[in-house]
Amino acid sequence: MTTGQIQVVGLDADDTLWHSEVYFERTQRRFDELVGRYVDDGIDVHRALEVVERRNLVRYGYGIKGFTLSMLECAMEVTDGAIGVEELQQILAAGRSMLDHPVDLIDGVDDTITYLSETGYRLVIVTKGDLHHQEMKVMASGLADRVERIEIVAEKDVATYRRVIASMEVPPEQFCMVGNSVKSDVLPVLELGGRAVHIPYHITWEAEHADHDGTVPTLDTIADLPAWLETQR
Amino acid sequence: MTTGQIQVVGLDADDTLWHSEVYFERTQRRFDELVGRYVDDGIDVHRALEVVERRNLVRYGYGIKGFTLSMLECAMEVTDGAIGVEELQQILAAGRSMLDHPVDLIDGVDDTITYLSETGYRLVIVTKGDLHHQEMKVMASGLADRVERIEIVAEKDVATYRRVIASMEVPPEQFCMVGNSVKSDVLPVLELGGRAVHIPYHITWEAEHADHDGTVPTLDTIADLPAWLETQR
Repeated sequence: MTTGQIQVVGLDADDTLWHSEVYFERTQRRFDELVGRYVDDGIDVHRALEVVERRNLVRYGYGIKGFTLSMLECAMEVTDGAIGVEELQQILAAGRSMLDHPVDLIDGVDDTITYLSETGYRLVIVTKGDLHHQEMKVMASGLADRVERIEIVAEKDVATYRRVIASMEVPPEQFCMVGNSVKSDVLPVLELGGRAVHIPYHITWEAEHADHDGTVPTLDTIADLPAWLETQR
Repeated sequence: MTTGQIQVVGLDADDTLWHSEVYFERTQRRFDELVGRYVDDGIDVHRALEVVERRNLVRYGYGIKGFTLSMLECAMEVTDGAIGVEELQQILAAGRSMLDHPVDLIDGVDDTITYLSETGYRLVIVTKGDLHHQEMKVMASGLADRVERIEIVAEKDVATYRRVIASMEVPPEQFCMVGNSVKSDVLPVLELGGRAVHIPYHITWEAEHADHDGTVPTLDTIADLPAWLETQR
């Protein structure tokens, strides 16, 4: 079935190509500790931040700047204004330091991307989040020279993937998306008639959890991707 | 000269299609007043914010979220921590309210866009700033149905315009960019051999000031654009 051969591989970025959620978690633990000193026992600072983040998601979208703004808002709100300016400055600094953090590629990514591009697969990075920060990360990753396009999108839904696949000028069945989120990287692509592989990261952000029937192709590591793609020919 | 006829019109968005800088200025005046109460006479809060914004530009990029983070950072820094949590909450709220503000089209935009699309010009919005917020504004503007593509970019330089013009599949001389910034909308396009028209807005953000020799085509209002395009045939 020649028409069905995978020609284009779509790659999620955060927690598929490089570590990201681990820095959010580290910052959030720091936040819990800093702010926790100012609240009564029994108040769950961690949960309070999730509520503020969710409330702001439509307004701020994804990314570190919105996360930092939500941390500041939550810190002032949950402590009834008792938080000190020094702690707020530490929260701001934590956000800046996340943005400034060097890109840390996940094991196996560099070799796999090289192998795929050398064996003739066309590669496109499809990532959501903050445009400016994602562009900086793609540049810093050193992967850009092996990737044909970089699509930084506001939402990973069926309409977005339809546009991305069309821009690569292949039918959906020749496109395979690879990522750590079943909800964002797998299900919308399958709905379009494309292919998708799930490569779980050891932490999944709460908002990315998705129910599925367990039949989604799953790999332990991106290093297994070339062999899996061979089995699809 | 058939090959030189303008086929594609690129449209800047903030302060070309809809009002934007006026809301930054209003918020900044509010900020100056709020923070000014906590600093000694002779300290220029307005200037201090410009310094913080400029320092953070590489990290935050353009847009309201980065502006809000810079306001918070400046308020705590310039007052040596004397600013109150209540004022910081007001600054956060001012940022949220900028993001939530309805899109306010500039006079003449709606009719002009309709006229251009009905007379066969292909339209592309080329805007920089925050991906999530710009997408929301384009949707809310009601203009999206008359525009072929929307390109939200991190930086408006020669490389970006080369890519945008290529994606519209025309030679540069058939592309004309329209915008309120000589630096971002006019000079890089002229450098590529494209055309460009400057439509000044009554306020120009400091970082967008550019020197030029005065020969840049300039219109008073976007309503004059169709007639100007006719003279270019």
